Amino acid sequence: MAGNSFGTLFKLTTYGESHGEAIGGIIEGCPAGLTLDIEAIQKEMQRRKPGQSKIVTQRKEEDEVLFLSGIFEGTTTGTPIGFQIKNTNQKSKDYSHNKSVYRPSHADFTYDKKFGMRDYRGGGRSSARETANWVVGGAIAKQLIKDIQVNAFVSSVGSIFVDKPYQELDLSKTENNAVRCPDEASAKKMETFIKQIKKQGDTVGGTITCVIQNMPIGLGEPVFDKLHARLGQSMLSINAVKGFEYGSGFCGAQMKGSEHNDLFNEDGTTKSNLSGGIQGGISNGMDIYFRVAFKPVATIMKNQTTIDSNGNPTEMQGKGRHDPCVVPRAVPIVEAMAAMVLADFYLINRASKI
Amino acid sequence: MAGNSFGTLFKLTTYGESHGEAIGGIIEGCPAGLTLDIEAIQKEMQRRKPGQSKIVTQRKEEDEVLFLSGIFEGTTTGTPIGFQIKNTNQKSKDYSHNKSVYRPSHADFTYDKKFGMRDYRGGGRSSARETANWVVGGAIAKQLIKDIQVNAFVSSVGSIFVDKPYQELDLSKTENNAVRCPDEASAKKMETFIKQIKKQGDTVGGTITCVIQNMPIGLGEPVFDKLHARLGQSMLSINAVKGFEYGSGFCGAQMKGSEHNDLFNEDGTTKSNLSGGIQGGISNGMDIYFRVAFKPVATIMKNQTTIDSNGNPTEMQGKGRHDPCVVPRAVPIVEAMAAMVLADFYLINRASKI
Amino acid sequence: MAGNSFGTLFKLTTYGESHGEAIGGIIEGCPAGLTLDIEAIQKEMQRRKPGQSKIVTQRKEEDEVLFLSGIFEGTTTGTPIGFQIKNTNQKSKDYSHNKSVYRPSHADFTYDKKFGMRDYRGGGRSSARETANWVVGGAIAKQLIKDIQVNAFVSSVGSIFVDKPYQELDLSKTENNAVRCPDEASAKKMETFIKQIKKQGDTVGGTITCVIQNMPIGLGEPVFDKLHARLGQSMLSINAVKGFEYGSGFCGAQMKGSEHNDLFNEDGTTKSNLSGGIQGGISNGMDIYFRVAFKPVATIMKNQTTIDSNGNPTEMQGKGRHDPCVVPRAVPIVEAMAAMVLADFYLINRASKI
Amino acid sequence: MAGNSFGTLFKLTTYGESHGEAIGGIIEGCPAGLTLDIEAIQKEMQRRKPGQSKIVTQRKEEDEVLFLSGIFEGTTTGTPIGFQIKNTNQKSKDYSHNKSVYRPSHADFTYDKKFGMRDYRGGGRSSARETANWVVGGAIAKQLIKDIQVNAFVSSVGSIFVDKPYQELDLSKTENNAVRCPDEASAKKMETFIKQIKKQGDTVGGTITCVIQNMPIGLGEPVFDKLHARLGQSMLSINAVKGFEYGSGFCGAQMKGSEHNDLFNEDGTTKSNLSGGIQGGISNGMDIYFRVAFKPVATIMKNQTTIDSNGNPTEMQGKGRHDPCVVPRAVPIVEAMAAMVLADFYLINRASKI
Repeated sequence: MAGNSFGTLFKLTTYGESHGEAIGGIIEGCPAGLTLDIEAIQKEMQRRKPGQSKIVTQRKEEDEVLFLSGIFEGTTTGTPIGFQIKNTNQKSKDYSHNKSVYRPSHADFTYDKKFGMRDYRGGGRSSARETANWVVGGAIAKQLIKDIQVNAFVSSVGSIFVDKPYQELDLSKTENNAVRCPDEASAKKMETFIKQIKKQGDTVGGTITCVIQNMPIGLGEPVFDKLHARLGQSMLSINAVKGFEYGSGFCGAQMKGSEHNDLFNEDGTTKSNLSGGIQGGISNGMDIYFRVAFKPVATIMKNQTTIDSNGNPTEMQGKGRHDPCVVPRAVPIVEAMAAMVLADFYLINRASKI
Repeated sequence: MAGNSFGTLFKLTTYGESHGEAIGGIIEGCPAGLTLDIEAIQKEMQRRKPGQSKIVTQRKEEDEVLFLSGIFEGTTTGTPIGFQIKNTNQKSKDYSHNKSVYRPSHADFTYDKKFGMRDYRGGGRSSARETANWVVGGAIAKQLIKDIQVNAFVSSVGSIFVDKPYQELDLSKTENNAVRCPDEASAKKMETFIKQIKKQGDTVGGTITCVIQNMPIGLGEPVFDKLHARLGQSMLSINAVKGFEYGSGFCGAQMKGSEHNDLFNEDGTTKSNLSGGIQGGISNGMDIYFRVAFKPVATIMKNQTTIDSNGNPTEMQGKGRHDPCVVPRAVPIVEAMAAMVLADFYLINRASKI
Repeated sequence: MAGNSFGTLFKLTTYGESHGEAIGGIIEGCPAGLTLDIEAIQKEMQRRKPGQSKIVTQRKEEDEVLFLSGIFEGTTTGTPIGFQIKNTNQKSKDYSHNKSVYRPSHADFTYDKKFGMRDYRGGGRSSARETANWVVGGAIAKQLIKDIQVNAFVSSVGSIFVDKPYQELDLSKTENNAVRCPDEASAKKMETFIKQIKKQGDTVGGTITCVIQNMPIGLGEPVFDKLHARLGQSMLSINAVKGFEYGSGFCGAQMKGSEHNDLFNEDGTTKSNLSGGIQGGISNGMDIYFRVAFKPVATIMKNQTTIDSNGNPTEMQGKGRHDPCVVPRAVPIVEAMAAMVLADFYLINRASKI
Repeated sequence: MAGNSFGTLFKLTTYGESHGEAIGGIIEGCPAGLTLDIEAIQKEMQRRKPGQSKIVTQRKEEDEVLFLSGIFEGTTTGTPIGFQIKNTNQKSKDYSHNKSVYRPSHADFTYDKKFGMRDYRGGGRSSARETANWVVGGAIAKQLIKDIQVNAFVSSVGSIFVDKPYQELDLSKTENNAVRCPDEASAKKMETFIKQIKKQGDTVGGTITCVIQNMPIGLGEPVFDKLHARLGQSMLSINAVKGFEYGSGFCGAQMKGSEHNDLFNEDGTTKSNLSGGIQGGISNGMDIYFRVAFKPVATIMKNQTTIDSNGNPTEMQGKGRHDPCVVPRAVPIVEAMAAMVLADFYLINRASKI
């Protein structure tokens, strides 16, 4: 481990800085014989791509995935899938002002101290550009576990919350608006609010809810690789994430056992699902659902005091093109990470019984 | 990976079912030359042990740790530390009624389906008895990273919350009461409430807050082994945990960037600390703090409908001795897991620079 | 990794010094539903045990394996199998003379330098006592891959070689003599020679050949976990091993391609098998065979000059009870390591195709 | 693990087939602050490259390494180093005749059976082209452990052996001839023999000896990651390797303990070095030396009978441009793998003592 690999059997290893020549990765362990829908992969990339609407950053990146190995005549061969995404829109000069200045609530300071140096162009390795790699891994994972439905959506922006449970939402409508919220009324409010925040040169946080349906029973490897523990780790790997809860989550901590227990139906399903589809770290076949908290983007278009690498106070103002609210673009990233976790456990689970 | 190892260089691998002959584990990677305070380890075991007060389960377990290797004349040798904890209080007959019945919101059903069978005595591998192993690993980790202070405490039980920030609490008072809440007024309310819940044959959830002070800068391995992502995974490994948030957490998702950013002082510390001591997955030297949500214990002393392994409806009522609220005993477990994560990153970080 | 785990899905992690209270380990990843023949496991332990005949060390160790978890009513549960072997015959005083003296060609010097200290009692972690743990892992692996036959035997002692190819030997006769050589004429010579060497207070090396029959096609994970590369690593892990070759081995390096190539029969088997049952790191269904070289045991009953930990010259003579030739007792160890490699790849291979 | 990663802290993960668009890899764990000599890396690539002399294949590959990340202004940043090598000389048509025919002693059959399909163009993933990736990793490893000298050379071709011990050779002369043998007289004989073999349309095997000098004490992680066990695994990963021995190797198996033991000098060095610089899996500071056996290349320019994927007998003759003897080109590959093993243990060893 040096922190750039994710998964055990279905494993993604990545490289890349935001302003290097390219980012990319290697997907190991995808079984042979999977006929890939390359267009569907590229479509996931489009969902994550900057510049899709007025409420996201206007940087233009093509984000075309180039596959270099592991696929022969459209089908996986069982050998590692190498892929690459060019950094076509680097504009390094945009970032020269960051050379010796630590941006507040960014990773400039910590990378500098940990490694004794840093690639200061646009966040380098700490940039969310890296998540484009994850979407590639997730898109292939989705095709491997194609019977499982993984659907994420924006469930809050600032203090605007979707106040319906996911069962009352039509998740197929998530892509109908720029915010990626399937509840149209909420979506409108969110969009208006984000535009307003953007005009202020400010940013705002939000949450994403992810629902996993048609789950097989048995995925997850207790005691340290419980399904929800790996889902949690994967979500907390995403830039700007501050919290993760599944099933009843933090609300569950206020409940009584007699309220919280999910009683069984005769077919092994449960009448309620406060457990969130997981018992003892293993999927029980019910829907898995979890919620992820994203802090507001740290780069704001307002003046901020800070220090340079010598500890001298200075001032700075965000430049470049940044998202006023990251959650709409993070929806496909959440799905990608969840899909990779599921694909990995799906393969590992094949070794559970003789 | 088969899910029973935790960590990369400082690594704990465990075995054991609640009603087998013993549980135990192997700690790899503890550097040579650490003179161990065995009494301090045993003291941590006492903190987790059942039967310490009237608000926790009255099962009696000695939980004495027997070290079998890796320590010579009181000092670690750099070789793996094998240890064992006997299961002295097995009372298997207490659990015979579980043989073919799936307890609601327990792991009986999922283990049965995943493995085609299960050790039905008291939860088997899914029992929280396993966490005794983790406390051993954590107690040694604490001694390895002895300059770092790891302090957890109960921050809520049901709807009773400690309403002060941790900075206003005297964390040395945590052990002064049975609830392990350093705020005495809250502790009293919590204790009364738990007794009441117990009398009802019910259980209740709660949260634990953990504060890590005197942190070195530079721990954490982006992009997939970010410090908070591994902390999150470790906490979500603990039985009954439903959520994890660090720094501003879920509240941060409602804030604006201009409110949320932590501005620097000239010495590299920050004026605020909504980031929770971690930027880009790497510690920045400020306090780390996070909150963990525990659901109410599933075993209640009330009658519940359920099914047996053939899908026939039946009724059951909890027997044996169970905790009405798990958070007081989970405090040392939270600390142990956090300490192991820190010890692992502390060792890995030695390879960051040439 | 800290060097004490072996395998990926079928994984053994061990602990223990030769003169601690016990040695033991944890076997992760053994699938659920395997009904174990405990007697067969104990029988493998007997094969490795000291004191079986006059040509091996006369130390008495019971080497009884105590299983602590992972087995319920005789069947594996899919959870980790913890086990322990007591060190009943420690006699620490036998080794006190080693405290500050570095025995030639032992690991005293290197452990001392690497870790800054060492457990000097009988080799500590570097003792071949550790291999008792491996025999437990291997005995369970053998039962998991029960259709595959793994048979090792002594193929040379000093300059006495079995001069027949393995196909002409009756491998069921290996256990008929103390040397574990299925060729009776050679066995007799070897036994006489070892007795003579022992009388001289000296030791001698030898080789073990291992044959794996009834192999499934497809085991092995190129490019870094080729089947023969893992077999080689596993053999080189065994104390005193200096070399590994498979198929044509070092002889193959003198051959021409036209002589060495294995031509196919119509059923996919090959007419010759200089490849040793592996092509490109993957088993092809033919017999796997390999040869392992063991150096002579370093502890001799003769006077040797050496130095103490301060660099002062001194003299020493081996005490205690040691093997004059290690290969007879290493036969079950070779089989055990091979069986664990196969079991691991057998499980991993389940994820090769969709 | 899916077999495409090598190492723990200093870790190489690779992708690529011989006739895909590119091969490449990711090097994780190279510490920050290493100023790379890119030219030296490219020079190692030239050493491995086909077409360097008349006794190696005349395929032309540029093998220029393109670095994509992890290096900023010439210095490593501590983030993963992504790199790529284009396949400029693919000529896929050369291999179309292999589509349904299994080449004898190649991996066509085993890949087909394991994965249910294969990329039949030139060996796909099983091609030695992959080793170009390893040379990149090794070249960077060499710069990380720059005080350690890693020198390999051809020590035999067919039955022509260098009959001097390595101490009597001037290893700086290895590159003076096409065979990469520092003993000029032997080199001449080898070269003549290889030309002769080539004219016959045949191939021949050989051995490479590798010597590691100026070793620090303490590298290697017993009991399963002994230094020689990892060196062995790494060598057995190289295409066509059939055997590995270190120190006294297979000869040592014929010796007595009184002959084999390495007695100490007062400074901790040893008078002899039959141990090959490693005791108990840990380097002792003496020279490490080992020998690797390569079988003859399987592709010969002679007619051979074989079968197609339906089991029908057919005939085939090698086409394309292949090496008559692989050892000269394998010299830099042996060095690269050894260097990566050493770099990994060098970093891991930093965590050995408190």
